[in-house]
Amino acid sequence: MSQRQTRINVVMEAIRSRIASRSYPPGTRLPSVRAQAKAMRVSVSTVVEAYERLAAEEVICARPGSGFYVCGPVAPLALSEIGPPLDREVDPLWVSRQSLEAGASLLKPGCGWLPAAWMYEAGVRRALRATARADAAVLSDYATPLGLPALRQLLARRMAAADIEARPEQIMLTESGTQAIDLICRFLLEEGDTVLVDDPCYFNFHALLRAHRVKTVSVPFTPNGPDVEAFGAALREHSPRLYITNSGIHNPTGATLSPVIAHRLLKLADNTNLVIVEDDIFADFEVSPAPRLAAFDGLSRVIHIGSFSKTISASLRCGYVAARADWIDRLADLKIATSFGSGQLASAILLAALTDSGYRKHMEGVRIRLAEARNKTMARLDAIGVTPWIIPQAGMFIWCRLPPGIDAADVARSCLKEGVVLAPGNVFSQSQDASGFLRFNAAQSMDVRVFDTLARILPA
Amino acid sequence: MSQRQTRINVVMEAIRSRIASRSYPPGTRLPSVRAQAKAMRVSVSTVVEAYERLAAEEVICARPGSGFYVCGPVAPLALSEIGPPLDREVDPLWVSRQSLEAGASLLKPGCGWLPAAWMYEAGVRRALRATARADAAVLSDYATPLGLPALRQLLARRMAAADIEARPEQIMLTESGTQAIDLICRFLLEEGDTVLVDDPCYFNFHALLRAHRVKTVSVPFTPNGPDVEAFGAALREHSPRLYITNSGIHNPTGATLSPVIAHRLLKLADNTNLVIVEDDIFADFEVSPAPRLAAFDGLSRVIHIGSFSKTISASLRCGYVAARADWIDRLADLKIATSFGSGQLASAILLAALTDSGYRKHMEGVRIRLAEARNKTMARLDAIGVTPWIIPQAGMFIWCRLPPGIDAADVARSCLKEGVVLAPGNVFSQSQDASGFLRFNAAQSMDVRVFDTLARILPA
Repeated sequence: MSQRQTRINVVMEAIRSRIASRSYPPGTRLPSVRAQAKAMRVSVSTVVEAYERLAAEEVICARPGSGFYVCGPVAPLALSEIGPPLDREVDPLWVSRQSLEAGASLLKPGCGWLPAAWMYEAGVRRALRATARADAAVLSDYATPLGLPALRQLLARRMAAADIEARPEQIMLTESGTQAIDLICRFLLEEGDTVLVDDPCYFNFHALLRAHRVKTVSVPFTPNGPDVEAFGAALREHSPRLYITNSGIHNPTGATLSPVIAHRLLKLADNTNLVIVEDDIFADFEVSPAPRLAAFDGLSRVIHIGSFSKTISASLRCGYVAARADWIDRLADLKIATSFGSGQLASAILLAALTDSGYRKHMEGVRIRLAEARNKTMARLDAIGVTPWIIPQAGMFIWCRLPPGIDAADVARSCLKEGVVLAPGNVFSQSQDASGFLRFNAAQSMDVRVFDTLARILPA
Repeated sequence: MSQRQTRINVVMEAIRSRIASRSYPPGTRLPSVRAQAKAMRVSVSTVVEAYERLAAEEVICARPGSGFYVCGPVAPLALSEIGPPLDREVDPLWVSRQSLEAGASLLKPGCGWLPAAWMYEAGVRRALRATARADAAVLSDYATPLGLPALRQLLARRMAAADIEARPEQIMLTESGTQAIDLICRFLLEEGDTVLVDDPCYFNFHALLRAHRVKTVSVPFTPNGPDVEAFGAALREHSPRLYITNSGIHNPTGATLSPVIAHRLLKLADNTNLVIVEDDIFADFEVSPAPRLAAFDGLSRVIHIGSFSKTISASLRCGYVAARADWIDRLADLKIATSFGSGQLASAILLAALTDSGYRKHMEGVRIRLAEARNKTMARLDAIGVTPWIIPQAGMFIWCRLPPGIDAADVARSCLKEGVVLAPGNVFSQSQDASGFLRFNAAQSMDVRVFDTLARILPA
């Protein structure tokens, strides 16, 4: 810090402490910059800068022609902000809110993302510095309706690498993968429509569909994709408008769609009204790529969505949707109406991070580290009688069965009291058939206290 | 072939085969020439030449200052991306899409934001550099459900300065002001509910409410706020659930709510079910602050929302909503369900820009510049027979009446063909009573060609 910076900070701290001690109560007019400079033996410009910064923080306020005054007091954060409430009903939002609200002291083996230390932090720092030098328009203007063209071109090239043909004008950027699905629901669904989901599936699909007030029907998920018999029966019985699923690595099971099931699903959908949303958020975790419905279907009835929240940064909000060009145009209208536009700045930062030559190497490292973490976690779970439903080939998730007769929600509630956030099976399950399951995140399970706590709580 | 030629060909072949085998997938940044030279044991100049040749073949592409990247087998942007389609129906989304899609060559006196050169560009650059040094959690993690606590505390202090009492836990960050209103609509409205808007009002309110499939009823706007008689009658006749309005500077009229009308509105709302959304997005443009409904009401039936898209950056998506604590909790659930979370990175960048001591001075400069621009624009409009409805005290908007008998939508369509995007009155008007009006943005009207074009198109 420069000497000037230090002097400015000293003046700011002195004024803050006088305000805190009420030696300057709210409403007090501060000494003029000249008088303050003399009293503190610093230059006038130092005091001017210190006052300006305190004014920017709204600690003091300027009244033109009259000087600076101490602002009124504002209540501090409430107690409820410091820890999450522990008594919330275990519903589809339970894990999200517990995980999002958990302080650094909680362990979160149930949460759905990597620890910050596993993310592409160095790349994001470089991307921020690069974006600080971008054109004024990138820093200040709204994005075009579809979003930053260079990022959409890169996404088109990435999809082409997965055999998905999408022209850049068939791709729209969104604030997140979740917003992409939400816009699709707004576009396609009428109140009372039926939507198919996997059982189990990502719990936020339930929360999202509940917000849309549609009927949800679930299809049992097998280690190779949805149960084809049940899928066909659901199509016949409910004429669903939409099916939402994960391609690549399935959340929460870590399973992988097989080509034969992908093909059968699309064949069953022939001559129906069904649209399929394929959420590809875990793509960069794959070791050997699974088939993509969007590749088989050619973006006819399949809409392909994704984001980089799980690999580059969850703090940087940017997702995308690839679909038929006429649908993209309607989705763009809806995006403008309901959130005005996507962030050009976030897109530019993401583009810089994605095209940084370090990203590929970073993800190679993450895949290796995850494989080790999965093995270690499965071994530790095995030691306390918790067994994986399948051995996942990639990704962070392990879908596990508790010993017979134990209710996962009870275990989750007990563990939360001891500072461990779990993901009980039924938050993922429409049929509520998964009360004996927990989803573990291997990357978030490296602390042995997770298993110590579980061992204490599970009946021997 | 010379030895040098042979070595260049070897390097080119090696890179081609890595691209073909997807060891360098599309989008990959190639190693720097120095690193490649070392790895392949050839001279730097050999690699430079090999890269240049591959770039000439469009196998890889150079990005100045950034290096070489593998191109994808992807179609270029479609023609439709290069210019906006000119034949879209003039509906509430017309101005948004024309303005958002307009290339740099179009003039946009009808658009709703400042030119990039007027925005807080230097502050955003500083904020990006500062955020590049932030904690890993800020760079990588999801935000808490309500969003970055330090930014919410600052917003609470800013509101306190406008006499709005909101504790930080009554404030939730969103992706944008528009998303804040959208979440409120999702929370409060049932299909078939009625919503009151001003006539004229910000056209995107119409688009947003249409997406919610609710009935919209409009109340004529006067130079001091909504017409109180009509407002009372609408309350009695339609029992609306929501009233959405701008506080401070009204869009599109530039008018200001008077304290007496603010008080009467709230009194009329007594004993009704009405919730009022007060959109404060233009707060920092005000010269002498207007009353805020949220200050009179104490956040009981008023929900206060805002963002900094108009002053700091539209590219940086971050808005906020302040409301009753129990409503904020429900809104947070809805935010998680439909967009998972707000961007911690955008919040951190915004916080850095807001607390930068330069922001206040920047806005002082913008207010002075806008006053000059408004005067100049009104004088130029006067010269061609276009007159302001009121003389706005602040902000960028001037709501203007065309000479009698001229239809603003016709004028807008003709001007668009000549590269000038206007905002015709009826896109703002539920009653379609504003066909003789245009909204001008003074900051976007500094180019004299705007008025030359208008003069040519308007009948003498």
